[in-house]
Amino acid sequence: MRIAVVAPSCPLKPEAAEAVEAIVAERGDCELAIHPQCFLVDGHFAGPDAARLAALREVMADPSVDAVWFARGGYGSNRIAEAALADLPAAARGKFYMGYSDAGFLLAGLHKAGMAVAWGPMPQDALRDGGDTAIHRALNWLVLRDASALEPHLQRPAMAFNLTVLSNLLGTPLEPDFTGVDLVVEEVSEHFYRIDRTMFHVTASANVRRAARLRLGRVADVLSNDVEFGADEQAIVADWCARSGIAFGGRADIGHDAQNRVVPFKREEA
Amino acid sequence: MRIAVVAPSCPLKPEAAEAVEAIVAERGDCELAIHPQCFLVDGHFAGPDAARLAALREVMADPSVDAVWFARGGYGSNRIAEAALADLPAAARGKFYMGYSDAGFLLAGLHKAGMAVAWGPMPQDALRDGGDTAIHRALNWLVLRDASALEPHLQRPAMAFNLTVLSNLLGTPLEPDFTGVDLVVEEVSEHFYRIDRTMFHVTASANVRRAARLRLGRVADVLSNDVEFGADEQAIVADWCARSGIAFGGRADIGHDAQNRVVPFKREEA
Repeated sequence: MRIAVVAPSCPLKPEAAEAVEAIVAERGDCELAIHPQCFLVDGHFAGPDAARLAALREVMADPSVDAVWFARGGYGSNRIAEAALADLPAAARGKFYMGYSDAGFLLAGLHKAGMAVAWGPMPQDALRDGGDTAIHRALNWLVLRDASALEPHLQRPAMAFNLTVLSNLLGTPLEPDFTGVDLVVEEVSEHFYRIDRTMFHVTASANVRRAARLRLGRVADVLSNDVEFGADEQAIVADWCARSGIAFGGRADIGHDAQNRVVPFKREEA
Repeated sequence: MRIAVVAPSCPLKPEAAEAVEAIVAERGDCELAIHPQCFLVDGHFAGPDAARLAALREVMADPSVDAVWFARGGYGSNRIAEAALADLPAAARGKFYMGYSDAGFLLAGLHKAGMAVAWGPMPQDALRDGGDTAIHRALNWLVLRDASALEPHLQRPAMAFNLTVLSNLLGTPLEPDFTGVDLVVEEVSEHFYRIDRTMFHVTASANVRRAARLRLGRVADVLSNDVEFGADEQAIVADWCARSGIAFGGRADIGHDAQNRVVPFKREEA
Protein backbone atom coordinates (compact mmCIF):
# COMPACT_ATOMS: atom_id res chain seq x y z
CA MET A 1 0.00 0.00 0.00
CA ARG A 2 1.31 3.43 -1.01
CA ILE A 3 0.24 6.29 1.27
CA ALA A 4 0.66 9.90 0.13
CA VAL A 5 0.85 12.65 2.75
CA VAL A 6 -0.24 16.18 1.83
CA ALA A 7 -1.00 19.19 4.04
CA PRO A 8 -4.17 21.08 2.98
CA SER A 9 -4.10 23.15 6.19
CA CYS A 10 -0.93 23.96 8.17
CA PRO A 11 2.68 22.78 7.70
CA LEU A 12 3.85 19.39 8.95
CA LYS A 13 6.73 19.54 11.43
CA PRO A 14 9.85 17.85 10.01
CA GLU A 15 10.39 15.93 13.26
CA ALA A 16 6.87 14.48 12.96
CA ALA A 17 7.61 13.43 9.37
CA GLU A 18 10.84 11.73 10.52
CA ALA A 19 9.07 9.92 13.34
CA VAL A 20 6.35 8.61 11.00
CA GLU A 21 8.92 7.55 8.40
CA ALA A 22 10.78 5.60 11.09
CA ILE A 23 7.59 3.83 12.14
CA VAL A 24 6.75 2.95 8.53
CA ALA A 25 10.29 1.64 7.92
CA GLU A 26 10.06 -0.51 11.05
CA ARG A 27 6.62 -1.88 10.07
CA GLY A 28 7.63 -2.68 6.49
CA ASP A 29 3.98 -3.16 5.44
CA CYS A 30 3.45 0.06 3.49
CA GLU A 31 5.21 2.82 1.58
CA LEU A 32 5.00 6.47 2.62
CA ALA A 33 5.35 9.40 0.19
CA ILE A 34 5.44 12.68 2.10
CA HIS A 35 4.81 15.42 -0.45
CA PRO A 36 7.32 18.33 -0.21
CA GLN A 37 4.31 20.68 -0.07
CA CYS A 38 3.84 19.56 3.56
CA PHE A 39 6.82 21.71 4.56
CA LEU A 40 5.91 24.90 2.68
CA VAL A 41 5.05 27.89 4.85
CA ASP A 42 2.86 30.81 3.76
CA GLY A 43 1.67 32.73 6.81
CA HIS A 44 -0.71 30.40 8.65
CA PHE A 45 -0.74 27.84 5.83
CA ALA A 46 1.41 25.04 4.37
CA GLY A 47 1.96 27.11 1.24
CA PRO A 48 -0.47 29.30 -0.71
CA ASP A 49 -3.91 27.95 -1.61
CA ALA A 50 -2.68 27.13 -5.13
CA ALA A 51 0.23 25.02 -3.85
CA ARG A 52 -1.91 23.15 -1.31
CA LEU A 53 -4.58 22.51 -3.92
CA ALA A 54 -2.05 21.39 -6.55
CA ALA A 55 -0.42 18.88 -4.17
CA LEU A 56 -3.80 17.48 -3.14
CA ARG A 57 -5.01 17.23 -6.74
CA GLU A 58 -1.71 15.58 -7.72
CA VAL A 59 -1.98 12.75 -5.21
CA MET A 60 -5.72 12.36 -5.85
CA ALA A 61 -5.02 11.87 -9.57
CA ASP A 62 -2.06 9.51 -9.03
CA PRO A 63 -3.15 5.90 -9.68
CA SER A 64 -0.11 4.60 -7.74
CA VAL A 65 -1.42 6.20 -4.53
CA ASP A 66 -3.73 3.95 -2.48
CA ALA A 67 -4.41 6.32 0.41
CA VAL A 68 -4.20 10.08 0.98
CA TRP A 69 -3.26 10.91 4.55
CA PHE A 70 -3.74 14.51 5.66
CA ALA A 71 -0.60 15.65 7.47
CA ARG A 72 -2.27 17.69 10.19
CA GLY A 73 -5.10 20.09 10.99
CA GLY A 74 -4.87 23.70 12.06
CA TYR A 75 -6.85 25.71 9.56
CA GLY A 76 -7.19 26.08 5.82
CA SER A 77 -8.53 22.97 4.06
CA ASN A 78 -11.91 24.68 3.59
CA ARG A 79 -10.22 27.27 1.36
CA ILE A 80 -9.38 24.64 -1.27
CA ALA A 81 -11.97 21.90 -0.66
CA GLU A 82 -14.51 22.95 -3.28
CA ALA A 83 -11.81 23.28 -5.95
CA ALA A 84 -10.30 19.94 -4.93
CA LEU A 85 -13.64 18.25 -5.64
CA ALA A 86 -14.23 19.79 -9.07
CA ASP A 87 -13.83 17.54 -12.14
CA LEU A 88 -12.61 14.63 -10.07
CA PRO A 89 -10.06 12.44 -11.83
CA ALA A 90 -11.02 8.75 -12.02
CA ALA A 91 -8.03 7.78 -9.88
CA ALA A 92 -9.38 9.89 -7.01
CA ARG A 93 -12.22 7.43 -6.48
CA GLY A 94 -10.22 4.27 -5.88
CA LYS A 95 -8.40 5.48 -2.78
CA PHE A 96 -8.88 6.11 0.90
CA TYR A 97 -8.64 9.49 2.67
CA MET A 98 -7.87 9.98 6.35
CA GLY A 99 -7.47 12.85 8.79
CA TYR A 100 -9.39 14.83 11.41
CA SER A 101 -9.85 18.29 12.90
CA ASP A 102 -9.63 20.91 10.11
CA ALA A 103 -9.34 18.06 7.57
CA GLY A 104 -13.03 17.46 8.34
CA PHE A 105 -13.93 19.99 5.65
CA LEU A 106 -12.28 17.68 3.10
CA LEU A 107 -13.64 14.48 4.65
CA ALA A 108 -17.15 15.93 4.36
CA GLY A 109 -16.75 17.01 0.75
CA LEU A 110 -14.94 13.86 -0.36
CA HIS A 111 -17.54 11.65 1.33
CA LYS A 112 -20.34 13.64 -0.26
CA ALA A 113 -18.64 13.09 -3.63
CA GLY A 114 -18.72 9.34 -3.00
CA MET A 115 -15.19 8.66 -1.81
CA ALA A 116 -14.07 6.49 1.11
CA VAL A 117 -12.94 8.67 4.02
CA ALA A 118 -12.23 8.21 7.71
CA TRP A 119 -11.66 10.37 10.75
CA GLY A 120 -8.39 9.20 12.27
CA PRO A 121 -4.91 10.13 13.57
CA MET A 122 -2.56 12.15 11.34
CA PRO A 123 1.25 12.26 10.92
CA GLN A 124 1.61 15.39 13.10
CA ASP A 125 0.18 13.31 16.00
CA ALA A 126 3.58 11.58 16.17
CA LEU A 127 4.68 14.54 18.33
CA ARG A 128 2.01 13.94 21.00
CA ASP A 129 2.68 11.95 24.16
CA GLY A 130 2.01 8.41 23.09
CA GLY A 131 2.02 9.55 19.47
CA ASP A 132 3.59 6.31 18.23
CA THR A 133 0.47 4.40 19.21
CA ALA A 134 -1.68 6.92 17.32
CA ILE A 135 0.43 6.50 14.17
CA HIS A 136 0.30 2.70 14.45
CA ARG A 137 -3.47 2.86 14.98
CA ALA A 138 -3.89 4.93 11.82
CA LEU A 139 -1.65 2.60 9.81
CA ASN A 140 -3.30 -0.49 11.29
CA TRP A 141 -6.54 0.79 9.87
CA LEU A 142 -5.21 2.08 6.54
CA VAL A 143 -3.05 -0.98 5.78
CA LEU A 144 -4.66 -3.84 7.69
CA ARG A 145 -8.25 -2.69 8.25
CA ASP A 146 -7.67 -3.65 11.88
CA ALA A 147 -11.04 -3.27 13.61
CA SER A 148 -9.39 -2.53 16.96
CA ALA A 149 -8.46 0.88 15.54
CA LEU A 150 -12.14 1.81 15.30
CA GLU A 151 -14.17 3.88 17.72
CA PRO A 152 -15.62 0.97 19.71
CA HIS A 153 -19.33 1.80 19.66
CA LEU A 154 -19.96 2.88 16.08
CA GLN A 155 -23.39 2.22 14.62
CA ARG A 156 -23.04 2.49 10.87
CA PRO A 157 -23.20 4.71 8.99
CA ALA A 158 -21.13 7.02 11.19
CA MET A 159 -19.31 10.32 10.81
CA ALA A 160 -17.01 12.29 13.10
CA PHE A 161 -16.23 15.99 13.14
CA ASN A 162 -14.68 18.65 15.24
CA LEU A 163 -17.76 20.55 16.45
CA THR A 164 -16.56 23.95 15.21
CA VAL A 165 -15.66 22.51 11.81
CA LEU A 166 -19.09 20.88 11.59
CA SER A 167 -20.75 24.21 12.40
CA ASN A 168 -18.74 25.98 9.74
CA LEU A 169 -19.47 23.50 6.97
CA LEU A 170 -23.26 23.59 7.41
CA GLY A 171 -24.84 25.39 4.48
CA THR A 172 -21.70 25.12 2.36
CA PRO A 173 -21.24 22.86 -0.68
CA LEU A 174 -19.29 20.49 1.62
CA GLU A 175 -22.28 19.61 3.84
CA PRO A 176 -23.01 15.87 3.66
CA ASP A 177 -26.31 14.10 4.33
CA PHE A 178 -26.55 13.17 8.02
CA THR A 179 -29.68 11.05 7.65
CA GLY A 180 -29.43 8.01 9.92
CA VAL A 181 -25.80 8.76 10.83
CA ASP A 182 -24.10 8.05 14.17
CA LEU A 183 -22.70 11.57 14.39
CA VAL A 184 -19.69 11.95 16.70
CA VAL A 185 -18.27 15.35 17.63
CA GLU A 186 -15.33 16.51 19.71
CA GLU A 187 -13.81 19.86 20.57
CA VAL A 188 -10.56 21.47 21.64
CA SER A 189 -9.51 24.87 22.96
CA GLU A 190 -12.94 26.50 23.15
CA HIS A 191 -14.87 28.18 25.95
CA PHE A 192 -18.01 26.43 27.23
CA TYR A 193 -20.12 29.36 26.09
CA ARG A 194 -18.80 28.88 22.56
CA ILE A 195 -19.53 25.16 22.69
CA ASP A 196 -23.06 26.02 23.80
CA ARG A 197 -23.45 28.54 20.96
CA THR A 198 -22.07 26.11 18.40
CA MET A 199 -24.42 23.36 19.63
CA PHE A 200 -27.32 25.84 19.23
CA HIS A 201 -26.25 26.36 15.61
CA VAL A 202 -25.55 22.74 14.75
CA THR A 203 -28.70 21.30 16.33
CA ALA A 204 -30.91 23.87 14.56
CA SER A 205 -30.02 22.20 11.26
CA ALA A 206 -32.82 20.03 9.81
CA ASN A 207 -30.12 17.86 8.25
CA VAL A 208 -28.33 17.28 11.58
CA ARG A 209 -31.68 16.52 13.19
CA ARG A 210 -31.99 13.57 10.80
CA ALA A 211 -28.91 11.93 12.40
CA ALA A 212 -29.59 8.64 14.18
CA ARG A 213 -27.87 9.99 17.28
CA LEU A 214 -25.18 12.39 18.37
CA ARG A 215 -22.26 11.33 20.55
CA LEU A 216 -19.60 13.39 22.26
CA GLY A 217 -15.90 12.66 22.07
CA ARG A 218 -13.39 14.38 24.29
CA VAL A 219 -13.51 18.11 24.86
CA ALA A 220 -9.93 19.10 25.63
CA ASP A 221 -8.25 22.26 26.87
CA VAL A 222 -11.49 24.15 27.64
CA LEU A 223 -10.66 27.87 27.86
CA SER A 224 -11.68 29.49 31.12
CA ASN A 225 -14.66 31.84 31.32
CA ASP A 226 -14.36 34.98 33.46
CA VAL A 227 -17.20 33.34 35.43
CA GLU A 228 -17.99 29.63 35.62
CA PHE A 229 -20.26 28.80 32.71
CA GLY A 230 -22.56 26.67 34.84
CA ALA A 231 -22.63 23.46 32.81
CA ASP A 232 -19.99 21.05 31.50
CA GLU A 233 -19.60 19.76 27.95
CA GLN A 234 -21.77 16.70 28.44
CA ALA A 235 -24.61 18.70 30.01
CA ILE A 236 -24.39 21.25 27.18
CA VAL A 237 -24.51 18.65 24.41
CA ALA A 238 -27.23 16.58 26.10
CA ASP A 239 -29.32 19.75 26.60
CA TRP A 240 -29.18 20.82 22.95
CA CYS A 241 -29.92 17.27 21.83
CA ALA A 242 -33.00 17.24 24.08
CA ARG A 243 -34.10 20.66 22.82
CA SER A 244 -33.78 19.61 19.19
CA GLY A 245 -35.11 16.06 19.40
CA ILE A 246 -31.78 14.41 18.57
CA ALA A 247 -30.96 11.21 20.50
CA PHE A 248 -27.89 11.81 22.67
CA GLY A 249 -25.78 8.65 22.54
CA GLY A 250 -23.32 9.49 25.32
CA ARG A 251 -19.54 9.65 25.06
CA ALA A 252 -17.28 8.48 22.24
CA ASP A 253 -13.59 7.61 22.03
CA ILE A 254 -12.28 10.37 19.74
CA GLY A 255 -10.46 13.63 20.40
CA HIS A 256 -7.43 15.77 19.78
CA ASP A 257 -5.10 13.27 21.48
CA ALA A 258 -3.09 10.10 20.97
CA GLN A 259 -6.10 7.94 21.95
CA ASN A 260 -8.15 9.26 19.02
CA ARG A 261 -9.86 6.33 17.23
CA VAL A 262 -10.83 5.82 13.60
CA VAL A 263 -14.33 6.56 12.27
CA PRO A 264 -14.88 5.47 8.64
CA PHE A 265 -17.81 7.29 7.04
CA LYS A 266 -18.90 4.60 4.58
CA ARG A 267 -21.06 1.83 5.93
CA GLU A 268 -19.08 -0.88 4.11
CA GLU A 269 -15.67 0.15 5.55
CA ALA A 270 -16.23 -2.08 8.55
CA MET B 1 -40.90 57.66 25.83
CA ARG B 2 -40.59 54.77 28.25
CA ILE B 3 -37.56 52.52 27.70
CA ALA B 4 -37.37 49.12 29.37
CA VAL B 5 -33.98 47.49 29.90
CA VAL B 6 -33.72 43.69 30.10
CA ALA B 7 -30.68 41.39 29.89
CA PRO B 8 -31.27 38.33 27.65
CA SER B 9 -27.55 37.44 27.75
CA CYS B 10 -25.18 38.39 30.62
CA PRO B 11 -25.77 40.53 33.75
CA LEU B 12 -25.66 44.33 33.62
CA LYS B 13 -23.09 45.90 35.92
CA PRO B 14 -24.78 48.04 38.61
CA GLU B 15 -22.33 50.92 37.97
CA ALA B 16 -23.35 50.92 34.28
CA ALA B 17 -27.02 51.05 35.31
CA GLU B 18 -26.30 53.99 37.62
CA ALA B 19 -24.39 55.86 34.90
CA VAL B 20 -27.22 55.41 32.39
CA GLU B 21 -29.84 56.44 34.96
CA ALA B 22 -27.83 59.60 35.65
CA ILE B 23 -27.68 60.42 31.93
CA VAL B 24 -31.41 59.85 31.54
CA ALA B 25 -32.18 62.03 34.58
CA GLU B 26 -30.00 64.79 33.16
CA ARG B 27 -31.61 64.58 29.70
CA GLY B 28 -35.18 64.55 31.04
CA ASP B 29 -36.60 63.46 27.67
CA CYS B 30 -37.37 59.84 28.47
CA GLU B 31 -38.09 57.40 31.28
CA LEU B 32 -35.89 54.37 31.99
CA ALA B 33 -37.16 51.15 33.61
CA ILE B 34 -34.26 48.82 34.33
CA HIS B 35 -35.76 45.41 35.01
CA PRO B 36 -34.38 43.73 38.18
CA GLN B 37 -33.67 40.66 36.04
CA CYS B 38 -30.67 42.57 34.63
CA PHE B 39 -28.80 41.95 37.88
CA LEU B 40 -29.53 38.25 38.30
CA VAL B 41 -26.55 35.93 38.00
CA ASP B 42 -26.73 32.27 37.02
CA GLY B 43 -23.30 31.03 35.92
CA HIS B 44 -22.54 32.85 32.68
CA PHE B 45 -26.03 34.31 32.38
CA ALA B 46 -28.23 37.08 33.82
CA GLY B 47 -30.41 34.52 35.50
CA PRO B 48 -31.66 31.15 34.23
CA ASP B 49 -33.20 30.92 30.75
CA ALA B 50 -36.69 31.01 32.28
CA ALA B 51 -36.02 34.28 34.16
CA ARG B 52 -34.42 35.99 31.15
CA LEU B 53 -37.26 34.87 28.92
CA ALA B 54 -39.94 35.95 31.43
CA ALA B 55 -38.45 39.45 31.78
CA LEU B 56 -38.18 39.86 28.03
CA ARG B 57 -41.73 38.59 27.46
CA GLU B 58 -42.99 40.87 30.23
CA VAL B 59 -41.62 44.08 28.69
CA MET B 60 -42.60 42.98 25.18
CA ALA B 61 -46.21 42.55 26.36
CA ASP B 62 -46.30 45.81 28.34
CA PRO B 63 -48.20 48.49 26.36
CA SER B 64 -46.61 51.24 28.48
CA VAL B 65 -43.15 50.33 27.14
CA ASP B 66 -42.15 52.14 23.94
CA ALA B 67 -38.70 50.66 23.51
CA VAL B 68 -36.87 47.54 24.71
CA TRP B 69 -33.16 48.18 25.22
CA PHE B 70 -30.94 45.13 25.64
CA ALA B 71 -28.63 45.71 28.61
CA ARG B 72 -25.51 44.13 27.16
CA GLY B 73 -24.14 41.28 25.06
CA GLY B 74 -21.91 38.44 26.16
CA TYR B 75 -23.70 35.22 25.35
CA GLY B 76 -27.11 33.69 25.80
CA SER B 77 -29.91 35.49 23.93
CA ASN B 78 -30.01 32.67 21.35
CA ARG B 79 -31.09 30.27 24.10
CA ILE B 80 -34.40 32.11 24.56
CA ALA B 81 -34.94 33.86 21.23
CA GLU B 82 -37.23 31.30 19.62
CA ALA B 83 -39.43 31.13 22.73
CA ALA B 84 -39.50 34.93 22.96
CA LEU B 85 -40.96 35.08 19.46
CA ALA B 86 -43.70 32.50 19.99
CA ASP B 87 -47.32 33.73 20.24
CA LEU B 88 -46.26 37.37 20.13
CA PRO B 89 -48.48 39.66 22.21
CA ALA B 90 -49.97 42.57 20.24
CA ALA B 91 -48.09 45.09 22.36
CA ALA B 92 -44.78 43.60 21.22
CA ARG B 93 -45.33 44.99 17.74
CA GLY B 94 -45.66 48.66 18.55
CA LYS B 95 -42.24 49.11 20.08
CA PHE B 96 -38.61 49.47 19.15
CA TYR B 97 -35.79 47.06 20.07
CA MET B 98 -32.11 47.99 20.29
CA GLY B 99 -28.82 46.27 21.09
CA TYR B 100 -25.83 44.64 19.41
CA SER B 101 -23.28 41.82 19.74
CA ASP B 102 -25.01 38.74 21.21
CA ALA B 103 -28.34 40.63 21.08
CA GLY B 104 -28.08 40.16 17.30
CA PHE B 105 -29.80 36.79 17.70
CA LEU B 106 -32.86 38.65 19.01
CA LEU B 107 -32.59 41.50 16.52
CA ALA B 108 -32.61 38.95 13.70
CA GLY B 109 -35.60 37.04 15.03
CA LEU B 110 -37.60 40.15 16.00
CA HIS B 111 -36.95 41.73 12.60
CA LYS B 112 -37.96 38.52 10.86
CA ALA B 113 -41.19 38.60 12.88
CA GLY B 114 -41.86 42.12 11.58
CA MET B 115 -40.74 44.28 14.48
CA ALA B 116 -38.64 47.45 14.37
CA VAL B 117 -35.10 46.74 15.56
CA ALA B 118 -31.76 48.49 15.44
CA TRP B 119 -28.13 47.65 16.06
CA GLY B 120 -26.86 50.26 18.51
CA PRO B 121 -25.09 50.98 21.82
CA MET B 122 -26.32 49.33 25.03
CA PRO B 123 -26.42 50.38 28.72
CA GLN B 124 -23.29 48.37 29.60
CA ASP B 125 -21.37 50.58 27.12
CA ALA B 126 -21.55 53.34 29.76
CA LEU B 127 -18.45 51.72 31.29
CA ARG B 128 -16.33 52.14 28.14
CA ASP B 129 -13.99 55.07 27.63
CA GLY B 130 -16.26 57.70 26.12
CA GLY B 131 -19.25 55.60 27.10
CA ASP B 132 -21.39 58.66 27.84
CA THR B 133 -21.36 59.60 24.16
CA ALA B 134 -22.42 56.07 23.24
CA ILE B 135 -25.37 56.22 25.66
CA HIS B 136 -26.40 59.66 24.35
CA ARG B 137 -26.12 58.39 20.77
CA ALA B 138 -28.40 55.46 21.56
CA LEU B 139 -30.94 57.72 23.32
CA ASN B 140 -30.71 60.35 20.58
CA TRP B 141 -31.83 57.67 18.19
CA LEU B 142 -34.41 55.99 20.42
CA VAL B 143 -36.02 59.23 21.66
CA LEU B 144 -35.30 61.81 18.96
CA ARG B 145 -34.66 59.71 15.83
CA ASP B 146 -31.52 61.85 15.46
CA ALA B 147 -30.00 60.89 12.10
CA SER B 148 -26.50 61.80 13.27
CA ALA B 149 -26.61 58.64 15.40
CA LEU B 150 -26.78 56.49 12.29
CA GLU B 151 -23.95 54.68 10.55
CA PRO B 152 -23.19 57.36 7.98
CA HIS B 153 -23.19 55.35 4.74
CA LEU B 154 -26.23 53.12 5.11
CA GLN B 155 -28.07 52.10 1.96
CA ARG B 156 -31.48 50.88 3.05
CA PRO B 157 -32.48 48.28 3.87
CA ALA B 158 -29.51 47.57 6.12
CA MET B 159 -28.62 45.13 8.88
CA ALA B 160 -25.65 44.84 11.20
CA PHE B 161 -24.29 41.80 13.02
CA ASN B 162 -21.31 40.57 14.89
CA LEU B 163 -19.75 38.19 12.35
CA THR B 164 -19.67 35.20 14.70
CA VAL B 165 -23.29 35.78 15.73
CA LEU B 166 -24.30 36.01 12.06
CA SER B 167 -22.52 32.73 11.34
CA ASN B 168 -24.28 31.02 14.24
CA LEU B 169 -27.77 32.16 13.30
CA LEU B 170 -27.58 30.94 9.70
CA GLY B 171 -29.83 27.92 9.26
CA THR B 172 -31.69 28.59 12.52
CA PRO B 173 -35.29 29.87 12.83
CA LEU B 174 -33.81 33.33 13.53
CA GLU B 175 -32.23 33.75 10.08
CA PRO B 176 -33.72 36.79 8.31
CA ASP B 177 -33.92 37.46 4.57
CA PHE B 178 -30.78 39.29 3.42
CA THR B 179 -32.06 40.04 -0.09
CA GLY B 180 -30.94 43.50 -1.16
CA VAL B 181 -29.58 44.32 2.31
CA ASP B 182 -26.58 46.54 3.10
CA LEU B 183 -25.06 43.93 5.42
CA VAL B 184 -22.58 45.29 7.95
CA VAL B 185 -20.43 43.01 10.12
CA GLU B 186 -17.88 43.59 12.85
CA GLU B 187 -15.84 41.37 15.11
CA VAL B 188 -14.06 41.36 18.46
CA SER B 189 -11.59 39.05 20.21
CA GLU B 190 -11.12 36.50 17.47
CA HIS B 191 -8.05 35.16 15.65
CA PHE B 192 -7.66 36.05 11.97
CA TYR B 193 -7.88 32.36 11.06
CA ARG B 194 -11.27 32.21 12.77
CA ILE B 195 -12.46 35.32 10.95
CA ASP B 196 -11.37 33.69 7.70
CA ARG B 197 -13.22 30.47 8.58
CA THR B 198 -16.35 32.35 9.60
CA MET B 199 -16.30 34.37 6.37
CA PHE B 200 -16.04 31.06 4.46
CA HIS B 201 -19.16 29.88 6.26
CA VAL B 202 -21.15 33.10 5.99
CA THR B 203 -20.38 33.78 2.33
CA ALA B 204 -21.31 30.22 1.34
CA SER B 205 -24.93 31.03 2.27
CA ALA B 206 -27.21 31.59 -0.74
CA ASN B 207 -29.23 33.97 1.42
CA VAL B 208 -26.18 36.08 2.34
CA ARG B 209 -25.16 36.11 -1.33
CA ARG B 210 -28.42 37.93 -2.08
CA ALA B 211 -27.26 40.90 0.05
CA ALA B 212 -26.75 44.14 -1.87
CA ARG B 213 -23.27 44.44 -0.43
CA LEU B 214 -21.23 43.52 2.63
CA ARG B 215 -19.34 46.10 4.66
CA LEU B 216 -16.85 45.66 7.47
CA GLY B 217 -17.01 47.53 10.75
CA ARG B 218 -14.18 47.50 13.23
CA VAL B 219 -12.38 44.30 14.13
CA ALA B 220 -11.08 44.86 17.64
CA ASP B 221 -8.73 42.98 19.92
CA VAL B 222 -7.60 40.42 17.34
CA LEU B 223 -6.07 37.45 19.17
CA SER B 224 -2.53 36.61 18.12
CA ASN B 225 -1.76 33.55 16.01
CA ASP B 226 1.34 31.50 16.83
CA VAL B 227 2.42 32.58 13.32
CA GLU B 228 1.29 35.70 11.45
CA PHE B 229 -1.88 34.80 9.59
CA GLY B 230 -0.75 36.55 6.42
CA ALA B 231 -3.76 38.81 5.74
CA ASP B 232 -5.62 41.46 7.75
CA GLU B 233 -9.36 41.68 8.35
CA GLN B 234 -10.08 43.81 5.31
CA ALA B 235 -8.13 41.54 2.96
CA ILE B 236 -9.91 38.50 4.44
CA VAL B 237 -13.40 39.96 4.04
CA ALA B 238 -12.71 41.38 0.56
CA ASP B 239 -11.31 38.00 -0.53
CA TRP B 240 -14.37 36.02 0.57
CA CYS B 241 -16.68 38.61 -1.00
CA ALA B 242 -14.78 38.25 -4.28
CA ARG B 243 -14.88 34.44 -4.09
CA SER B 244 -18.63 34.43 -3.44
CA GLY B 245 -19.73 37.20 -5.79
CA ILE B 246 -20.83 39.56 -3.01
CA ALA B 247 -20.04 43.25 -3.53
CA PHE B 248 -17.58 44.40 -0.85
CA GLY B 249 -18.61 47.89 0.20
CA GLY B 250 -15.56 48.82 2.28
CA ARG B 251 -15.49 49.87 5.90
CA ALA B 252 -18.37 50.86 8.19
CA ASP B 253 -18.61 52.81 11.44
CA ILE B 254 -19.72 50.13 13.89
CA GLY B 255 -17.89 48.03 16.44
CA HIS B 256 -17.51 46.95 20.04
CA ASP B 257 -16.60 50.47 21.17
CA ALA B 258 -18.01 53.83 22.20
CA GLN B 259 -18.03 55.03 18.57
CA ASN B 260 -20.49 52.29 17.57
CA ARG B 261 -23.27 53.79 15.40
CA VAL B 262 -26.93 52.85 14.98
CA VAL B 263 -28.16 50.60 12.16
CA PRO B 264 -31.98 50.32 11.97
CA PHE B 265 -33.07 47.22 10.04
CA LYS B 266 -36.39 48.53 8.67
CA ARG B 267 -36.19 50.69 5.60
CA GLU B 268 -38.66 53.24 6.99
CA GLU B 269 -36.70 53.88 10.22
CA ALA B 270 -34.67 56.58 8.53
